Amino acid sequence: MTIKTTFIAGLLGSAMAFVGAASAQDIKIGVSYPTPTHAWAAGMNWHAEQAEKRLEALYPDVDLILINSPDPASQASALEDLVSIHQIDALVVLPFESEPLTDPVINVKSTGALITVVDRGLSQPGIEDIYVAGNNPELGRVSAQYMKGRMESGDNIVVLRGIPTLIDNERFDAFMAEMEGSGINILDHKHANWNRDDGFEVMQDFLSRFPDIDAVWAQDDDIAIGVVAALEQADRTGDGMFVVGGAGMKETIKGIMDGNELVPVDVLYPPSMIATAMDVTVAAFKSNGPVAGRYILGATLITQENAATFYFPDSPF
Amino acid sequence: MTIKTTFIAGLLGSAMAFVGAASAQDIKIGVSYPTPTHAWAAGMNWHAEQAEKRLEALYPDVDLILINSPDPASQASALEDLVSIHQIDALVVLPFESEPLTDPVINVKSTGALITVVDRGLSQPGIEDIYVAGNNPELGRVSAQYMKGRMESGDNIVVLRGIPTLIDNERFDAFMAEMEGSGINILDHKHANWNRDDGFEVMQDFLSRFPDIDAVWAQDDDIAIGVVAALEQADRTGDGMFVVGGAGMKETIKGIMDGNELVPVDVLYPPSMIATAMDVTVAAFKSNGPVAGRYILGATLITQENAATFYFPDSPF
Repeated sequence: MTIKTTFIAGLLGSAMAFVGAASAQDIKIGVSYPTPTHAWAAGMNWHAEQAEKRLEALYPDVDLILINSPDPASQASALEDLVSIHQIDALVVLPFESEPLTDPVINVKSTGALITVVDRGLSQPGIEDIYVAGNNPELGRVSAQYMKGRMESGDNIVVLRGIPTLIDNERFDAFMAEMEGSGINILDHKHANWNRDDGFEVMQDFLSRFPDIDAVWAQDDDIAIGVVAALEQADRTGDGMFVVGGAGMKETIKGIMDGNELVPVDVLYPPSMIATAMDVTVAAFKSNGPVAGRYILGATLITQENAATFYFPDSPF
Repeated sequence: MTIKTTFIAGLLGSAMAFVGAASAQDIKIGVSYPTPTHAWAAGMNWHAEQAEKRLEALYPDVDLILINSPDPASQASALEDLVSIHQIDALVVLPFESEPLTDPVINVKSTGALITVVDRGLSQPGIEDIYVAGNNPELGRVSAQYMKGRMESGDNIVVLRGIPTLIDNERFDAFMAEMEGSGINILDHKHANWNRDDGFEVMQDFLSRFPDIDAVWAQDDDIAIGVVAALEQADRTGDGMFVVGGAGMKETIKGIMDGNELVPVDVLYPPSMIATAMDVTVAAFKSNGPVAGRYILGATLITQENAATFYFPDSPF
């Protein structure tokens, strides 16, 4: 593998100044992401650790260095350490925020390291060699297709949205475009900020204002938990009511496997995408296939049939 | 890994009817592509064989079955055999043509096999789980950016195009859009069908009609070989003349490494993408990361600096 030779040559050049336990043959890959403060991020942390164990067992010369950071400034400083202390050959980074991490990632790139960006982009195009992300428009489209397939013209739905962001807009716009012409009424849509408590409050408001709701697009599994709580409190879970969330939370998936009729499906936007990013980054050093490019993961509809494939009982998410 | 369990359960179910040397634990992945009749396809065949050796050594329970077919009907029949004889768990397919292979691939999918489509799409959307392809618009854009960077307003270029297809249109349209406003004149563009002889003839015509040509966009390494021959025959290789091809042919890359001034760069559209497709398909059974989605490989600019990374001296291409 030519790319490996190139990188190792680069590493050997700087190995003279390096004092540490690892041998100069090691391929060092830094993996940097936010400290898990909510469930999705905790799932990501778990999947990164799983991928680290798996890839290091598979390739004894690969050393994955995982660092999580509590804020953008700490993440910028972690990237500096990955270069100065670990002299990484490649970086997998899920930026805390786009703007404050753009220059720090450019600095890593300037050392010759391969750059893989996960989930959210940087402020300038063309920095990363590999981009791995979920598919937000498809998440909206797949959700709408499922709901249309179960409903009739004249039926009513309400929509809970995430935090006002590009991600939320992409999901919402694709959902509305797919719903157009279906005859299904979107009674209202409000931001619930990918949050259980906000999901509960927004849904309480919807329930008090609309006596006839047939289904809910909650967009997100955390919001959906709040929605279900509000529906149960108001005793409005009957008459074929159903809720569509999104992400792939393990409790949601377990419910789908067990035949939960109130939340019968989910749409994938998985924290395990960090593992995919680690796989393709390692492949840059191990495969004869090219890896630079854009890998946009599918927003797969999770049903009772395929749910087991997406169920990781040991993950926190 | 849950997905692995699911697939193995499926395989065990059918293993009673299966008589063969392989054990029921094997993960069987069919890899189907056209018989190599030109250089790019020969490169693809070589890279598929390299990936087979590498992946089977890495994962003893993975069995990759490579089949090349001389025409669409033979490829359809090869897909049937992969199901009936080998009972594959996944298929990596580079379709000969889109239309005649669409139904055969749908039949493979109906057995529950994971489907990875490479390079050219099928006639219906949504069949494949994974799509791996090059980036044709980016190939045009990257070529134009390089040429603009070396030229001045008022300079003249000629353009040789491929076979009239969507791929050629995407490359050409993106090239022209990127050139717009540069002040560089596109004297003419003609189809040279990704072919050395046509490249030679079209370039001879351009040379006879245009006394002042500063550079040539040949879009493809085979066309570029014909262009260079015509330039040499007409003794018009001087005055800073340069030619930009595309694909990543090993002779072209070797020339770039050696400092060839007439063909100083290349733009990647690599036959080794089949290896990338095999990697991500195997990852479906081995990784905790999701793999379903669209993986569009970058049209990397190959320069003297990075050429070694893309040089495979043992490949036929």
